[in-house]
Amino acid sequence: MNFYGNPITRLIEELSGLPGIGGKSAQRLAFYIINMPKEKAYALSEAIRDAKENIKYCSVCCNLTDDDPCYICDNPKRNHKIIMVVEDPRDMAAYEKTREFNGVYHVLHGAISPMLGIGPQDIKIKELLERVGKEDTDEVIIATNPNVEGEATAMYINKLLKPLGVKVTRIANGVPVGGDLEYIDEVTLSRALEGRREM
Amino acid sequence: MNFYGNPITRLIEELSGLPGIGGKSAQRLAFYIINMPKEKAYALSEAIRDAKENIKYCSVCCNLTDDDPCYICDNPKRNHKIIMVVEDPRDMAAYEKTREFNGVYHVLHGAISPMLGIGPQDIKIKELLERVGKEDTDEVIIATNPNVEGEATAMYINKLLKPLGVKVTRIANGVPVGGDLEYIDEVTLSRALEGRREM
Repeated sequence: MNFYGNPITRLIEELSGLPGIGGKSAQRLAFYIINMPKEKAYALSEAIRDAKENIKYCSVCCNLTDDDPCYICDNPKRNHKIIMVVEDPRDMAAYEKTREFNGVYHVLHGAISPMLGIGPQDIKIKELLERVGKEDTDEVIIATNPNVEGEATAMYINKLLKPLGVKVTRIANGVPVGGDLEYIDEVTLSRALEGRREM
Repeated sequence: MNFYGNPITRLIEELSGLPGIGGKSAQRLAFYIINMPKEKAYALSEAIRDAKENIKYCSVCCNLTDDDPCYICDNPKRNHKIIMVVEDPRDMAAYEKTREFNGVYHVLHGAISPMLGIGPQDIKIKELLERVGKEDTDEVIIATNPNVEGEATAMYINKLLKPLGVKVTRIANGVPVGGDLEYIDEVTLSRALEGRREM
């Protein structure tokens, strides 16, 4: 039943379509928005439209950006011969926060997952191959997630890049810093042992 | 740091201003919105603007509505001599869902709370008094929340309405249907005992 008048009901419906927002949360958010100052609510409305309108893929690395090429691909101080391959723009941001990587990125926008029906043609692998073929690349670091889909994607990309004579590396598996050995799964523990380094 | 370009960063900021949405959720929502079909994202943007633009208080009951008077105050089949006073439009919707109440409502938009600095002048009590003074009211049912603020508000309204010669009632306290006595607090149990009725 429509207890609140159409605009509120419509807002609740639209909000409840977002991930992790159920009916009750959507209702709470809708009333919060209605009680917001007008300019704050309009800013939110505009931000949604603006993001949808002005965000596109960077033509070099496929990251989401409003400028093309994106600010990383456009930065001459970065090492364009080292490409880190990530699944998602958020993974790129996570590595940027470390301030330890000075190369450039390639964003796949997903990982190969037969379970979800995502094949190699559905993610930006073709773009990576073209880029590596065209540019003078020293190393491709594969930083897909350390799960089944990420590993499968890493192996697939490795197989395609090897014939091009480029060095392909994978980020290390091991115990996370600050973790407690007692609670770490066996696979990670044995990978950490395999990957041990002299001190 | 702005890792994603301005429109995304701005959207994340705006979303993280909503209640119960922290930085990580805002980021997740922003990426979800960017990957939504264009018309869905625009519909959400429009719904926010539209709700903010077209929702006002009903001039009779202070409920939120796009039509004035609201569909309840405008319904001649309802008993306009019985007014149920609630704190919030959602409380009104909760009672509407029971389909047991055929009177009309008055929405206070809050409860008296010295802790939060909300006094009687900050909620729609004046409007209620004017309405009861002007209309031919048989009964005012106070359905504010059964907590300290709601009880204080109920007592305050009762004190103001009594001199007008109108019958003022309060919804019953007692054990909730389907509840388990073992887990119900003592105050509720003693209220349920006090309010016992012959079978």
